[in-house]
Amino acid sequence: MHMRNVFGGIEGGGTKFVLLLGTGPDDVVDETHVPTTTPEETLGRVVEFFSRPHEGVRLAAVGVASFGPIDPDPSSPTYGYITTTPKPHWPHTDVAGRLRATLGVPVGWDTDTNGAALGERRWGAGGDADPLYYITVGTGIGGGGYVHGQLLHGLMHPEMGHLLLPIVEGDTFAGICPYHGRCLEGMASGPALRARLGRPAQEVGPDDPVWDLAARYLAAGMLSITEILSPQRIIVGGGVAGAPGLLDKVRRHMTRLNNGYIAALDRAGVIEGYIVPPGLGGRAGVMGALELARLAYEGDAYHGDTETRR
Amino acid sequence: MHMRNVFGGIEGGGTKFVLLLGTGPDDVVDETHVPTTTPEETLGRVVEFFSRPHEGVRLAAVGVASFGPIDPDPSSPTYGYITTTPKPHWPHTDVAGRLRATLGVPVGWDTDTNGAALGERRWGAGGDADPLYYITVGTGIGGGGYVHGQLLHGLMHPEMGHLLLPIVEGDTFAGICPYHGRCLEGMASGPALRARLGRPAQEVGPDDPVWDLAARYLAAGMLSITEILSPQRIIVGGGVAGAPGLLDKVRRHMTRLNNGYIAALDRAGVIEGYIVPPGLGGRAGVMGALELARLAYEGDAYHGDTETRR
Repeated sequence: MHMRNVFGGIEGGGTKFVLLLGTGPDDVVDETHVPTTTPEETLGRVVEFFSRPHEGVRLAAVGVASFGPIDPDPSSPTYGYITTTPKPHWPHTDVAGRLRATLGVPVGWDTDTNGAALGERRWGAGGDADPLYYITVGTGIGGGGYVHGQLLHGLMHPEMGHLLLPIVEGDTFAGICPYHGRCLEGMASGPALRARLGRPAQEVGPDDPVWDLAARYLAAGMLSITEILSPQRIIVGGGVAGAPGLLDKVRRHMTRLNNGYIAALDRAGVIEGYIVPPGLGGRAGVMGALELARLAYEGDAYHGDTETRR
Repeated sequence: MHMRNVFGGIEGGGTKFVLLLGTGPDDVVDETHVPTTTPEETLGRVVEFFSRPHEGVRLAAVGVASFGPIDPDPSSPTYGYITTTPKPHWPHTDVAGRLRATLGVPVGWDTDTNGAALGERRWGAGGDADPLYYITVGTGIGGGGYVHGQLLHGLMHPEMGHLLLPIVEGDTFAGICPYHGRCLEGMASGPALRARLGRPAQEVGPDDPVWDLAARYLAAGMLSITEILSPQRIIVGGGVAGAPGLLDKVRRHMTRLNNGYIAALDRAGVIEGYIVPPGLGGRAGVMGALELARLAYEGDAYHGDTETRR
């Protein structure tokens, strides 16, 4: 019987690992998720899922879009590791190496947000934007970038959740980031909004002033991205970003903060297509992981760090 | 007689255009500079310089690394233009098109700071860093980037001088940026320091508190670049950046602001090689312009926007 090649996408998050077998959004053979407990248990269940036989298909490679920080440098001895995460059990865990050893297939490896950028570029709201930036605003705030056909790495990988930004006049909130206090994540992530309100932000209406404040910090962060990297589009995903009306508030604050300096942002209709929600919704990361798998399978791209051939 | 090919490098600045004929730092056939007055006069003198016969060499292409904002998009009808600059006589000036028409050679075209990034990558302090970021701190503050073998463009080009950053506690200076008041350029450029002091910053000693304040804003900006783009190195040029001891102060503030979050910055010796002065000194821009010329000559690279073959 003919067996066709499919890929395994793994989005590794702090609470769950999302697993998907297929080749893209229109060809999903199987999917599930498993809780993030210990590396032994969670990666054991990942291996179990992808080892299960599925009729007519063969697993050709897997890709991992992981919470971090990670080591994305193929020349490093700890390539494929989750590194200094505060998450118990997970610091210094060799994820990509274990999966390759147990599954016996090539493994693509990158951050969850770089993965989401790649997924959105391939199948989502990225279109042909290059540079493209992806931001997630939820439990944490993080970013990933796709520039000149490749995902963004260097000294490490993007960590834009920790941007230091002007404090809004009269905002006395001390911030919740253990490293920086009042950085972007410390002021505008889901837990930051909950700490401001004393209850989850989902429980307050869209007219609560907390949303305007969050939008103002997020807008300052996105303007920084535009000033430093000049992406053609910024995709904003994550649970907080999906709150009704939030992206519109972000667009208005970004326009106001820019004050006409970057003239291209002020052209009619530009900002609406510049700050956009993900086309793949919550699936951007796992779809990006599938694409990382495909790139790893194509060989010169073990780490997903090569030009995307479309 | 055999004529060898050489290139013309043009660094277009707000006060002067630096012109250089040659192929690199070790092969300069001729050089001069002309004042920036009107486009007619200044570009006329540029054409005159490069049209002058030089024994044994033939001008194969020119490259322009220009003050901005510019239009770097080859598909745009205003590609090759300086666009909305506040500089009298220069808004909406077709620089690249005029030079190509009058000199009859291919013209490479990019910003002064992208040009400097390219020059430093090819011959200066860039080494094999990719991504590489270049910042100039002088009359203004600007940045350029070299990522995955190409210079950085997108919505426009980097404009990191206008980053919005936390105001240092107790700093009541109103800033001098006409667009944003207290952005990075408004707080830490040469004219900003002069406005703070009531005299040029060069006239105060290296222990004056103004340098520590400038270093703190610059460090916050460089940390933002690291968080968003994760370059492997940031080169810092320009007149203000060359003040004695300033880069050391920037390194200390950046380490303190990061507070251990990006662990790679804290490894012994990393920050000293991460924030560095230009290897080409004040010649980074014009040497980058030479490289833009060479890329334009190589044909698939009319706009300098292609992989640098070394």
